[in-house]
Amino acid sequence: MDFNHFDHQGQAIMVDVSAKQPTLRTAIAEARISMTPELAERIATSGSAKGDVLGVARLAGIAAVKRTPELIPLSHPLAIHHVTVEFQPDIAAGRIVVRCTVRAFERTGVEMEAMTGASLAALTIYDMVKGADKTVEISGIRLLFKEGGKSGTFRREVC
Amino acid sequence: MDFNHFDHQGQAIMVDVSAKQPTLRTAIAEARISMTPELAERIATSGSAKGDVLGVARLAGIAAVKRTPELIPLSHPLAIHHVTVEFQPDIAAGRIVVRCTVRAFERTGVEMEAMTGASLAALTIYDMVKGADKTVEISGIRLLFKEGGKSGTFRREVC
Amino acid sequence: MDFNHFDHQGQAIMVDVSAKQPTLRTAIAEARISMTPELAERIATSGSAKGDVLGVARLAGIAAVKRTPELIPLSHPLAIHHVTVEFQPDIAAGRIVVRCTVRAFERTGVEMEAMTGASLAALTIYDMVKGADKTVEISGIRLLFKEGGKSGTFRREVC
Amino acid sequence: MDFNHFDHQGQAIMVDVSAKQPTLRTAIAEARISMTPELAERIATSGSAKGDVLGVARLAGIAAVKRTPELIPLSHPLAIHHVTVEFQPDIAAGRIVVRCTVRAFERTGVEMEAMTGASLAALTIYDMVKGADKTVEISGIRLLFKEGGKSGTFRREVC
Amino acid sequence: MDFNHFDHQGQAIMVDVSAKQPTLRTAIAEARISMTPELAERIATSGSAKGDVLGVARLAGIAAVKRTPELIPLSHPLAIHHVTVEFQPDIAAGRIVVRCTVRAFERTGVEMEAMTGASLAALTIYDMVKGADKTVEISGIRLLFKEGGKSGTFRREVC
Amino acid sequence: MDFNHFDHQGQAIMVDVSAKQPTLRTAIAEARISMTPELAERIATSGSAKGDVLGVARLAGIAAVKRTPELIPLSHPLAIHHVTVEFQPDIAAGRIVVRCTVRAFERTGVEMEAMTGASLAALTIYDMVKGADKTVEISGIRLLFKEGGKSGTFRREVC
Repeated sequence: MDFNHFDHQGQAIMVDVSAKQPTLRTAIAEARISMTPELAERIATSGSAKGDVLGVARLAGIAAVKRTPELIPLSHPLAIHHVTVEFQPDIAAGRIVVRCTVRAFERTGVEMEAMTGASLAALTIYDMVKGADKTVEISGIRLLFKEGGKSGTFRREVC
Repeated sequence: MDFNHFDHQGQAIMVDVSAKQPTLRTAIAEARISMTPELAERIATSGSAKGDVLGVARLAGIAAVKRTPELIPLSHPLAIHHVTVEFQPDIAAGRIVVRCTVRAFERTGVEMEAMTGASLAALTIYDMVKGADKTVEISGIRLLFKEGGKSGTFRREVC
Repeated sequence: MDFNHFDHQGQAIMVDVSAKQPTLRTAIAEARISMTPELAERIATSGSAKGDVLGVARLAGIAAVKRTPELIPLSHPLAIHHVTVEFQPDIAAGRIVVRCTVRAFERTGVEMEAMTGASLAALTIYDMVKGADKTVEISGIRLLFKEGGKSGTFRREVC
Repeated sequence: MDFNHFDHQGQAIMVDVSAKQPTLRTAIAEARISMTPELAERIATSGSAKGDVLGVARLAGIAAVKRTPELIPLSHPLAIHHVTVEFQPDIAAGRIVVRCTVRAFERTGVEMEAMTGASLAALTIYDMVKGADKTVEISGIRLLFKEGGKSGTFRREVC
Repeated sequence: MDFNHFDHQGQAIMVDVSAKQPTLRTAIAEARISMTPELAERIATSGSAKGDVLGVARLAGIAAVKRTPELIPLSHPLAIHHVTVEFQPDIAAGRIVVRCTVRAFERTGVEMEAMTGASLAALTIYDMVKGADKTVEISGIRLLFKEGGKSGTFRREVC
Repeated sequence: MDFNHFDHQGQAIMVDVSAKQPTLRTAIAEARISMTPELAERIATSGSAKGDVLGVARLAGIAAVKRTPELIPLSHPLAIHHVTVEFQPDIAAGRIVVRCTVRAFERTGVEMEAMTGASLAALTIYDMVKGADKTVEISGIRLLFKEGGKSGTFRREVC
């Protein structure tokens, strides 16, 4: 079993996708930011009047999707066709869940784009609340859904 | 209690640090990638012969530290003076821990740089192993240590 | 009437264009820099012997077209196929007009690319002459022509 | 009278500022977007519920300030210490005024950073409303205030 | 005989490729770093234990291929589909040869991508060894092979 | 003898320069493009009327100096204070020499910035003339001069 980002001599490569036909690819990835319930409530209710934490984080996630080829060394530059970044606050649990959806008609999947978008949206929330709560932590960065490639559709069983 | 990345009208700003004196700032952040023990072992022992997964991820982390001002919308561009990215594999637990250390003589802290570096190193490992294990997940992105600012030294009690 | 860069909950998105067929898109945008007639004359006649202000600005405009997806938050990354940046000095009026033309065979229009290219070319002229004239001002940034999308051809009546 | 971004042979250079002492620099620049009064009202009252046009544009302006050295060919990379982007809608006049303030303790001024920030915030508003009004135009991009350099304080008489 | 990156008035343009059909393009470029035989041996045998100079340089080359449109002013942004960077050390001659291969299904060739990738890989080797040998020099940056465009296949006679 | 971009375990790092005092650093690097005498003459005499090849290449070199931290993986982001890119055509020899000078008041040297600036200026000339001459080659990329660091002044004996 070999990693496919390396050739048979173990050298890192950008894998050849030139012979593949473009297909419609979708990926959804998730990240979770845990904090105190008080802080989660403030973020969930902030809106633009008191400081739109989620609005800033959403744009950071969309920007990160577009910059994935510069951030993930062996990834391909892709023509991204659709991005959304959504947030589900769970105030009682002290948690905000980020969900990033990416779609493109391309030769390779957009999984890393969705993972990177969710991560940077979460890091941006972290940046804005880190002064208020030292225990903030990001976890659960994972793929939820993927379709359009030859390996078929993947859907994670979410516990 | 207000978020300090927003002014009193709730508008996002880059906070004014021009009146602060530069001091020596250090931050250490961590991220964890969980996978099967088999996969963790392959990564830990890969080296450059079979594909140096950790070597690629280390460079992705260092590059991400330098690009933090472009990724975190309200962060300041900083003159980074030192970066290391280290990995601690725990094969039995099926886990690789990334630790990113950043240092700069600057007007504001390098916490987001360390957090972003650890995250992108972890995402890059994810990218290289995602084909081999669908359950890979990134978690535990958090600050371990910070010193040099007026809020004093922070050291996380690691469980 | 809703803005189409936001979903029904008012959240910013990158609009889904994956189902659209690529067509040949052209856009032409304009910007105007006003200054003293003396300064306009110096720029118009500078050439490479005394300092090619317009040559520098032209390259800034072309570079900006390529970077539009990083600058306009909700824009799509596009495969740009053609860019020109032209200047029409009107010495008596103390004015230089920038015209930026962009073409691409793409799923969405290149209007923002042309607008961004014209603006950055104008800002670069401003940068080079700002030491010589404090009254320099940029105005008239607007779309002149657009074709290739489903909304048909647009041609501005230029006064 | 020569342009100071060129040497005596007319070759473009990045001017030597290494011998200058850093001082506190501030610059404020402005841009104006004109549209129908109906559209100006929708933007002014949009907020995060219906689509926060101004929130998106504000972040685009802050990001553009940080990227000025990549956009303006002969500008110096500067350590930006403070950025704000504010909007003043004038609904009756069908106009939104952008004001971008930049501050840095640096060897050269932040005028181009403020001009670029105001311009990109305006272009981003344009992007979000261009589907609703074909007559939208950006004008009045100009410096309002500048202080901290050897040429003294500049304050534009605003009509 | 005119340069094709300029129009008939001598103005720099991004040449219009919108009417061309995409074809499979491949380019291979080379660069050579000369140094003392001792240094060449250390690099060739370094691996990840003592410092994987070639591994770092390989990633710099791949990254540079992806960034070519930002570095070469009049080049087109291309959807890169494959990149490899290989090294052939000749210890006796005190020389390391870099070979960068790029492939894309595109409207224009990937020659500049391969040239830029080989150059940045060589510059990165230079960066890592410059402290050990002041005579290090990069030379022989040239195209070895190119196919897929209307000008046919090019293969350099290598002496 | 160890490479100083790696720690004692052979892991790539960004070397810690935080304890160093800034000093005035200058570096001059050179690159050579060889071609037919006819082509060298056309470039040397092109100017802005027929297509200012050297003007475009000069801006590419200055831009590359500013982007060095993104291109050379283990380099530090530096506050560049001065850049020039000059060309010396030798028509009889069929050669154009690029010379890039960089200056900064910084904690570490600007050698890589000068090397990268000279290389990208040369690659940009290559891009513009490659259609006219298949034998064009870049060589002689090397440091000519360096001063300001603790290792003293370096001046290459130019043959």
